[in-house]
Amino acid sequence: MAQIKPRTLSGFMELLPARQVQFDRMVDILRKSYSLYGFTPLDTPAIEASEVLLAKGGGETEKQIYRFTKGDTDLSLRFDLTVPLAKYVALHQNELTFPFRRFQIAKVYRGERAQKGRYREFYQADIDVIGDGALDITNEAEIPSIIYKTFTALGLHRFKIRVNNRKVLNGLFALLGLEAQAGDVMRTIDKLEKIGSEKVRAILVDDFAVPGEAADALLALLAAEDPMAALEPYQGKNQLFDQGVSELSTVVKYMSAYGVPEDHFMVDLTIARGLDYYTGTVYETVMLDHPEIGSICSGGRYDNLAEYYTDKQLPGVGISIGLTRLFSVLEAQGYLNDQMNTAPADVLILPMTEDLSPAISFATALREAGVRAQLHCEKKKFKQKLSYADKLSIPFAAFLGEDEIAQGKVTMKNLTTGEQQTVTPAEAVALVQASLAGLSGSVPIVDQP
Amino acid sequence: MAQIKPRTLSGFMELLPARQVQFDRMVDILRKSYSLYGFTPLDTPAIEASEVLLAKGGGETEKQIYRFTKGDTDLSLRFDLTVPLAKYVALHQNELTFPFRRFQIAKVYRGERAQKGRYREFYQADIDVIGDGALDITNEAEIPSIIYKTFTALGLHRFKIRVNNRKVLNGLFALLGLEAQAGDVMRTIDKLEKIGSEKVRAILVDDFAVPGEAADALLALLAAEDPMAALEPYQGKNQLFDQGVSELSTVVKYMSAYGVPEDHFMVDLTIARGLDYYTGTVYETVMLDHPEIGSICSGGRYDNLAEYYTDKQLPGVGISIGLTRLFSVLEAQGYLNDQMNTAPADVLILPMTEDLSPAISFATALREAGVRAQLHCEKKKFKQKLSYADKLSIPFAAFLGEDEIAQGKVTMKNLTTGEQQTVTPAEAVALVQASLAGLSGSVPIVDQP
Repeated sequence: MAQIKPRTLSGFMELLPARQVQFDRMVDILRKSYSLYGFTPLDTPAIEASEVLLAKGGGETEKQIYRFTKGDTDLSLRFDLTVPLAKYVALHQNELTFPFRRFQIAKVYRGERAQKGRYREFYQADIDVIGDGALDITNEAEIPSIIYKTFTALGLHRFKIRVNNRKVLNGLFALLGLEAQAGDVMRTIDKLEKIGSEKVRAILVDDFAVPGEAADALLALLAAEDPMAALEPYQGKNQLFDQGVSELSTVVKYMSAYGVPEDHFMVDLTIARGLDYYTGTVYETVMLDHPEIGSICSGGRYDNLAEYYTDKQLPGVGISIGLTRLFSVLEAQGYLNDQMNTAPADVLILPMTEDLSPAISFATALREAGVRAQLHCEKKKFKQKLSYADKLSIPFAAFLGEDEIAQGKVTMKNLTTGEQQTVTPAEAVALVQASLAGLSGSVPIVDQP
Repeated sequence: MAQIKPRTLSGFMELLPARQVQFDRMVDILRKSYSLYGFTPLDTPAIEASEVLLAKGGGETEKQIYRFTKGDTDLSLRFDLTVPLAKYVALHQNELTFPFRRFQIAKVYRGERAQKGRYREFYQADIDVIGDGALDITNEAEIPSIIYKTFTALGLHRFKIRVNNRKVLNGLFALLGLEAQAGDVMRTIDKLEKIGSEKVRAILVDDFAVPGEAADALLALLAAEDPMAALEPYQGKNQLFDQGVSELSTVVKYMSAYGVPEDHFMVDLTIARGLDYYTGTVYETVMLDHPEIGSICSGGRYDNLAEYYTDKQLPGVGISIGLTRLFSVLEAQGYLNDQMNTAPADVLILPMTEDLSPAISFATALREAGVRAQLHCEKKKFKQKLSYADKLSIPFAAFLGEDEIAQGKVTMKNLTTGEQQTVTPAEAVALVQASLAGLSGSVPIVDQP
C-alpha cells in the first residue's frame, strides 16, 4: 500500500502521554482556580464568520489569521478568545446576567512565521468580568488575587505581579504636556527595562520632541522606589490622573485582604500594555528567575468590549495566560514536576489463570472504589508485563493466581518500594488509596526544589 | 461606529452559561470514567497537513472536510479523532508503550449541509486500545463495561448495548455461499430494523441473487431469540466463523464480571457497522425510549489502525460518543437535569460597609476552603443584588454589615429555604459545604424521574 509519511505540522504542540497528563493537570487547576472566584465556563466555536471576527480589522491580525471559504461562506479561525467573547456577549446580552464572569480555556490560531517558542495553535486561558454600563473598581483589585492563587496552585511561587493604571499614565502625559506624543511615549517607556533610561530619554527627546525637563520628570517618576508616594505631588491638577491614582490606591489597599503577599505584588508605572484597548488597571506577571520570558499572565481594564457589535456599553477587566507557550517554557527550564503521578492507571492487574473472571471482578471492584485499574491480558511474558507497568510508572501491580483466587485475595506489589502483600480486595483498595493520597495532590510545576 | 451584526454560524453549538456547565459536567464525567479504565488523555492538533489527514481519501470525507491553504501549505481541519490517532501512533510508535490506551474528547469539523441535529463543529469522545501486532480479546470484552459505567455515571439508565462480531457475519456469509455479495448483504441486513424482514428478503433475493434458502436461513438466524444457541449448528465448518463465535462467547462470558447487568446488554447479529474497517466485535448503544435517535455510542475492533502511515501492524478496538449531538438530543427530549447546580458561585457576598476589607477577607477565606465565592460590589440596590443571585441560582448570600463585622461574623442566607443565620466564617464554610454535599454529586442527565 502506498503510504504517507506521518507528521505533525510545525508550530503545533503535540505531547507524549506523560507530558499531556501534566498539561491537563495545569488546565484542571486553572479551571478550579477560576471557578473559586465565581467564573463560569464558556465554549465558543473555533470558526466564526470572517466579517464578525475581523469587525475591528487591522494590522497583524489580518495577516496571521487562518481564513478560508466553505461553499460561499467566508470563515476564519479565532485568533484570540476576546473577540469571540465580545460577539457572545453582544449576541446574548438579553440572556446574560451582569456582571458576567466567564472563563474560557481553548485553542486559538495564528499563522505566524514558525520559530522557537511560537505556536500557530495554542491554548489561551482567559477570564473576564463584563459589566452592564459600569463595573466597580473592586473587580480590578481582585485580579492580582486570581493570578496569585492560580500560579501558586500550579506550584509556581517565584513570580511577581506588576500593576499600573492607564489613567495614571495618560493623566501624567497630559500634566507634562505630552498628550500629542502619548502613544509614542508609551511605546518608548515600555522599552525601559530592555534598553535603559538613558536610551529612552534620548528617543523621547530626539525622536518625539519631548522637552528635556518633561523627560527627566517622567523618568524620575518611573524609577521611583515608592511609586505611590512619587505620584502624590502631581495630584489635584488633572481629573483623569487623580482618578487613576485613586483606582491604583484601591487596588493596592485590598491586596492583603485578597490574600496576595506583599512580595508577590508591586506597582510598576512603566507597564503600559499596548495602546488603545486598556483604560484602567493593567497587569503583567513575571517569573523572578526568568524575566527574559516576559509576562506570563497579562491583561487589564477596558471600557468597551463589544463596540463593533453593539451600542451597549460593556466595560470589563480580564487577563489571559498563554498556556501552550508557558508549558513549553516551563519544560525547557526544567520546571515541570517529574515526581508527578502521570501513570494512566493506579493498578496493573496481571491475571495468572485461564479463567479471567476473578481478575476482571477485582478490576471492577477497584473502579467502583474510584481506583484506576487496567487489566493486562496480552500474551506476553510476566517480566514484560512488569516492564510495561514500569515504563508507564504505574505504582501497583496485582497478581491473581490459583492460590489468591482460592482465598478470595490478591497479591499487591508496590512497584516503587518492591513491597508485596496478599490482601482482600477491600484491603487492596485501602492500600492503593493510602499510597496515592500523597501523589494525587502533587502539582505540575516545581520551582523551589 | 459602523457595526457588524454579531452572529454564530449555523451548525455550531454555542451554549448559554447554565447549559455549558451541564455540558462540561458531562465531559468531566467522561474523563473520569475513561480514566478509571486506564486510558490516558491525548490532545492532537485540530489542523493537520491535508495529505496526512486524507491519506485514506475517498468519498464523503473529502467533500465535507474544511480544507484551505496558508502560505503554500495545504491544510485541513480534522473530521474525526481516529485518523489523528493513527498519525500519532505511527509517528510516535517508538516512544509509546503498547497496548496504548488513550482517550480524546475534542472538537471535529465536517462541512455538512446544515440541518436539525447536524453539527459542523462537534465534540467526539473517543477511547481506543492499540496493540503492537496483537491485541487480546479481553480488550473487546471490556468495552461494554466502559459504555455501561460511563452512561450510568452521566445519569442515563434506560439504554442497551448491542454487540456483534464481524467474523461471525463474514464466516456466515461464506458458509451460505454469499461471499461475493458479502458487502451488499451486510448493508441490507443493517436495514432490518427499519424495513422489516420481508423487504430485506426481497432485496436479498431479487437484487443480490441470494438463493431463497440462504436468505431464509440467514433471516432465521438473525431473528433468533437466543443468538448464541442459534449459531451453534453452523460451528466446525468455517474457521473464521468459529473464531468469531468464540470471541463473541468470551465477550458474553465476562459481561457479569465486568459489572454489566444482563438487561443492559445483548448480542444482536444484525449489527454490522459499516464495511471495511471493523474486523471483530462491533458495538452499538441505543436509548430504550428513543430508538429513533440511533446509536449513541458505537465502535468496534479493527486490525490495522495506521496502514496508511506505517507497515507496523496496529490492531485496536475503540468506541466514540458524538457528544454534541447527544447533548442536543438530551436537551430536546427533556433529559437534562434541571436540578443540577449550575451556579457560577456557591456564595454571593454583599458588603454593606464602605471599607470592603472584611468582606474581601471573608471571600478569601471561603476560597481557601474550596468554596466558590463572588463579591458583588457594584453600585446597585440591595434587591437587585439578591435578584442577581436568584437569576444565577447562587445558593447562598452573605451579608457583612457593621454589626457582623464588629462581631467577626457574617449573616448567611440560604436562598432556597430563606433561612438566615449569623455565624463565624468557619461556620459559614461548614454550612455551605454541608448544603452543597448533596448538590455537587448531581448528575447532568435524568431519565428516571
